[in-house]
Amino acid sequence: MSHNSFGKNLIFTSFGESHGSVIGCVLDGFPPGMMITVDEIKKELIRRATGKSRHTSQRKEKDDVQIVSGVFEGKTTGHPIALLIENTDARSKDYSNIAEQFRPGHADYSYWHKYGIRDYRGGGRSSARETTVRVAAGALAKKWLKSHCGLEVSAWLSQLGSIELNRGDVHLRDSNPFFTGEVSRTKELELYMDQLRKSGDSVGARINAEAINVPKGLGEPVYGKLDAELALAMMSINASKGVEIGAGFESVSQAGSEHRDEIVGGEFLSNHAGGILAGVSTGQPITLSVAFKPTSSLRIPCRSENIHGQAVEVITTGRHDPCVGIRAVPIVEAMMALVLMDHVLRHRAQNN
Amino acid sequence: MSHNSFGKNLIFTSFGESHGSVIGCVLDGFPPGMMITVDEIKKELIRRATGKSRHTSQRKEKDDVQIVSGVFEGKTTGHPIALLIENTDARSKDYSNIAEQFRPGHADYSYWHKYGIRDYRGGGRSSARETTVRVAAGALAKKWLKSHCGLEVSAWLSQLGSIELNRGDVHLRDSNPFFTGEVSRTKELELYMDQLRKSGDSVGARINAEAINVPKGLGEPVYGKLDAELALAMMSINASKGVEIGAGFESVSQAGSEHRDEIVGGEFLSNHAGGILAGVSTGQPITLSVAFKPTSSLRIPCRSENIHGQAVEVITTGRHDPCVGIRAVPIVEAMMALVLMDHVLRHRAQNN
Amino acid sequence: MSHNSFGKNLIFTSFGESHGSVIGCVLDGFPPGMMITVDEIKKELIRRATGKSRHTSQRKEKDDVQIVSGVFEGKTTGHPIALLIENTDARSKDYSNIAEQFRPGHADYSYWHKYGIRDYRGGGRSSARETTVRVAAGALAKKWLKSHCGLEVSAWLSQLGSIELNRGDVHLRDSNPFFTGEVSRTKELELYMDQLRKSGDSVGARINAEAINVPKGLGEPVYGKLDAELALAMMSINASKGVEIGAGFESVSQAGSEHRDEIVGGEFLSNHAGGILAGVSTGQPITLSVAFKPTSSLRIPCRSENIHGQAVEVITTGRHDPCVGIRAVPIVEAMMALVLMDHVLRHRAQNN
Amino acid sequence: MSHNSFGKNLIFTSFGESHGSVIGCVLDGFPPGMMITVDEIKKELIRRATGKSRHTSQRKEKDDVQIVSGVFEGKTTGHPIALLIENTDARSKDYSNIAEQFRPGHADYSYWHKYGIRDYRGGGRSSARETTVRVAAGALAKKWLKSHCGLEVSAWLSQLGSIELNRGDVHLRDSNPFFTGEVSRTKELELYMDQLRKSGDSVGARINAEAINVPKGLGEPVYGKLDAELALAMMSINASKGVEIGAGFESVSQAGSEHRDEIVGGEFLSNHAGGILAGVSTGQPITLSVAFKPTSSLRIPCRSENIHGQAVEVITTGRHDPCVGIRAVPIVEAMMALVLMDHVLRHRAQNN
Repeated sequence: MSHNSFGKNLIFTSFGESHGSVIGCVLDGFPPGMMITVDEIKKELIRRATGKSRHTSQRKEKDDVQIVSGVFEGKTTGHPIALLIENTDARSKDYSNIAEQFRPGHADYSYWHKYGIRDYRGGGRSSARETTVRVAAGALAKKWLKSHCGLEVSAWLSQLGSIELNRGDVHLRDSNPFFTGEVSRTKELELYMDQLRKSGDSVGARINAEAINVPKGLGEPVYGKLDAELALAMMSINASKGVEIGAGFESVSQAGSEHRDEIVGGEFLSNHAGGILAGVSTGQPITLSVAFKPTSSLRIPCRSENIHGQAVEVITTGRHDPCVGIRAVPIVEAMMALVLMDHVLRHRAQNN
Repeated sequence: MSHNSFGKNLIFTSFGESHGSVIGCVLDGFPPGMMITVDEIKKELIRRATGKSRHTSQRKEKDDVQIVSGVFEGKTTGHPIALLIENTDARSKDYSNIAEQFRPGHADYSYWHKYGIRDYRGGGRSSARETTVRVAAGALAKKWLKSHCGLEVSAWLSQLGSIELNRGDVHLRDSNPFFTGEVSRTKELELYMDQLRKSGDSVGARINAEAINVPKGLGEPVYGKLDAELALAMMSINASKGVEIGAGFESVSQAGSEHRDEIVGGEFLSNHAGGILAGVSTGQPITLSVAFKPTSSLRIPCRSENIHGQAVEVITTGRHDPCVGIRAVPIVEAMMALVLMDHVLRHRAQNN
Repeated sequence: MSHNSFGKNLIFTSFGESHGSVIGCVLDGFPPGMMITVDEIKKELIRRATGKSRHTSQRKEKDDVQIVSGVFEGKTTGHPIALLIENTDARSKDYSNIAEQFRPGHADYSYWHKYGIRDYRGGGRSSARETTVRVAAGALAKKWLKSHCGLEVSAWLSQLGSIELNRGDVHLRDSNPFFTGEVSRTKELELYMDQLRKSGDSVGARINAEAINVPKGLGEPVYGKLDAELALAMMSINASKGVEIGAGFESVSQAGSEHRDEIVGGEFLSNHAGGILAGVSTGQPITLSVAFKPTSSLRIPCRSENIHGQAVEVITTGRHDPCVGIRAVPIVEAMMALVLMDHVLRHRAQNN
Repeated sequence: MSHNSFGKNLIFTSFGESHGSVIGCVLDGFPPGMMITVDEIKKELIRRATGKSRHTSQRKEKDDVQIVSGVFEGKTTGHPIALLIENTDARSKDYSNIAEQFRPGHADYSYWHKYGIRDYRGGGRSSARETTVRVAAGALAKKWLKSHCGLEVSAWLSQLGSIELNRGDVHLRDSNPFFTGEVSRTKELELYMDQLRKSGDSVGARINAEAINVPKGLGEPVYGKLDAELALAMMSINASKGVEIGAGFESVSQAGSEHRDEIVGGEFLSNHAGGILAGVSTGQPITLSVAFKPTSSLRIPCRSENIHGQAVEVITTGRHDPCVGIRAVPIVEAMMALVLMDHVLRHRAQNN
């Protein structure tokens, strides 16, 4: 949780810019002895890949991941696992016109004022391309959690702009380009997106996520609470503006007698807590929800300034998602898996 | 962000249980040379103090804080500042009946399954009493930020149960027991709380907060983002269930052309970003919102189990807030100040 | 390993100055369920206590330790364990004459130039008094290690000035004021110290230490190596100037055929490695040696300057050890135990 | 200081094994705006390169470093700097015979017992090849320190087996394969090494190092002391067995009146402290000394066991240094530079 790393016993570090030669990550502290193949990682990368449909970014990313360390004869060794993805589709020239502009809603303004220098090509370090390696590392965490305790993480689109979606059958979320379990509404979503694309505008998205078969006792009170670290992980995803655990903001207007989850016959009758009490998992499913703002890069012009303080009009003509949030589904899953796995390790350090 | 500490260059650690002899904290990495008195700290503690009105907890807490290290001849020395608050009102007997019960909505169940042992007196480590030292340490951070760059943090009640409140005049928020800037609505809130108290039930609250005069450039991309660390800090506060930055969940249904904050004449025309772009502050006010769940301890009975797996009926008869969220106002301010000050130090480490 | 904390899964933080009202520490991440009493901690504090003989400091320290959190009904709870020692013998007036002087060999000069402010009373934060709480926390770590895997830590005086001492019978090291296992040489050491005291001068000391019944596999390659973290811990003790693991500096002139420890019949034939290979424990005893410089405060005058850059003559007349290193024995043991216990927890996080 | 990372505000992480496809590192928190070229890094790598003479390893390493992130248009951007070195000389077959053997003095035994799996090719993660990226990252730290405050780091061979060497002219240390400033003794060293090579045996080495133009005030009392973190850094280098600061172990037999460094006319008269008092730099040169054990891999057979507990005779026939310590000179410099730069950043965070 510093610069480009997070985690305590499972430490994830990423590096690389949108148009650099390589995007990569290091996953340190991973237990030895787990089988892992490049194909297992690619399976998750394909879920995230842009260009899978006309509803997400038009950019082709090959995402050929290499495991360059920490795996020997197909098994993790306990040493740092480095994953590299070479950039085969860097078209720097597309971005030269924005070298000195501050695009509203982007890192341009804040990075410039922080560092006094900025890799403006494709957003540089702030590009969503960085999330590729989160998803890659998440593939390992997911596999480990599944085999360690049956824990599974799922995320799905729960709102697209003003369209709210039910949970539906989350197992079907990969069957459509919207990651929705309400498969019957795919047509509706497609029409909505087509309209958006025509208008040159964009909308936000809400992603819900759930982890099942979570061991009881994960989370370190008081400042390493499981919900707090999940919130940090979710808010570290590009474009996220809000996080809820369990009932979230609805709990503000709930009565206490309604919110608290009663236990009868060894079972909780409800899960407003979202599987976490006082920062520690209860064994119930962990549920959370993340808000993503609308894509900032639009064909519709807007007013801004450049690094010299001069007024400019910003129009984006390149390849972009009309709703960047949809693609966040596998990223939310990956971040959730990484945080949960870190906490399994942390928990057994103290409470074996 | 591990167990009982948070922060990187300004590191806060707390210890102590509700009914232990002492609650305390250590604030490490604080710059030397700042004047600080016990009275300045007490001023903040009084804001938080329970028992200030009939609308919050009936428990009398004296909160006599001592500065036992890190301050010499009235000035910070650069060494760890330890603040201790002795417990003068510990009535352990009140809690003996719940020693083996899991009170719904409390730490009881999750702590027991994590540690196999539990200090059941007043919630032990999970008690809101721990937040006293956050507020104490926050007093130092607030003073430093004010003198360093004029930065000021304010929080206020923006929703009480179903009653939504406007920002009003935040300077008046300390004039009433609800921390509302809409002073004219105090009567309405009193009636609402009286009804709640009679019914034996409780509600949640939403607290909004704002920091002004924030230097540009605070925040460490990609995993030490300012909004991500604020989210962690807010979610570490007892009973919090959600966090928003800027437009938060509203940004889901916003159009991109609406959400993005245009710049004209060197000024942002709006602040949907909440003062943070790509995890780094822009100089605009930082705005956030936190959801607090309703108080879990109620006179209304509910079903649960005990540590032996036997069904029990839980009724709380002790002293409790009908809305625990109200009291969170100074805690939100303190946590926000501590995170922001840490980031000022972190920023100047890298980008002097 | 930042400011006033060290450790990763077992995190120790200390606070307090020589003449402040309280010296204390927080031990976080400690496993729940271990019985611990104040008397068990005091037993270690008495070993360290100054004033136990005329050969160490004349200052009376009562060292009445309180456990104020993290222990409930005699057992650790998994929450932060705070230990406080009130200062009952602070005589500030003794030190007023040195308020502006830089005493050679002390923190005075470097602290002043770092912070621009200095608590000059008794060395403030740099006082060896801070080590009291290391010893207190070490008592818990020692007990846990003993019960967890039979691991035991012992340190002893191996050199006093020019007098080299053999290991002797380490079980007898507490029977004499020099912590030597060569009990028969106590008289010789007493005479040496008496001469020193008369001359107003001081000498250094070498302390050797050993841990037995160490589990195989402790240590995190490459930057959390067990020997590296032990070195850090030892060099964090006041007045230490060098650390060796195993054969240490002797290994420079050893032949490779001599140094490497052969294995025959499942047993290592020697232990030049000091129980650690490539940063990871082998199960052999861990052996190390620490150099402590001579006490800097002497009756013999010396030349220095004050905070205004003016030449001053420094003479120390207060209560001081002629060899500060002797007292380091229980501190070395405590630091070794804390580091080893942290690594047991870290190891089981990754390699359960 | 955890697994494969060290540093607080300047964080270094490495990954990769001896015979993996890539060795790499990530340097995070580096200030923006510094010019850096691949050639400047290579200059340091060449100093470390094995194969530069017959007195060090016969292995040819090309060490073609790539900067894949964190540098834009020749300047650091403030984002993580990843350096990759592809392995072009991996001959895995050389090592197949030792797949199940525990070579004495190597990581084989301890890694196996820690992880239950081991990349036996060339020592895997424990290979000195990992130090390549330390030297690469050190090149950036050296350049920054030089331009920031004129700070320069130098290391040299001070002892080769039983041959002690004076400091000589450290500027000439790169003119000979032994990194000695006593250039006139090169012949003597060559003869000594030739004899060693014939005998099939090896010796250890002592490396001394010095930093000049060190700002006053670096170091974080009490557990982030500058000398303590330097000790950790030195002990993290392969084969190191001891570290001294300033007078080191000699201070044990020094009189206090001799050891303490007097100040006259604003100047210290001596530097037994090694430039650090109470963990904080004084502005004097920082001096330290590191012991390296003799190379463990020898043609002389020795007794050990394999992973099945069976006795084996180990003979090493591959390419190896008769004194691995010589090559440590640029590594010691790199580690010293990385630690010092981290502390410059840490110091200005707190004490701008």
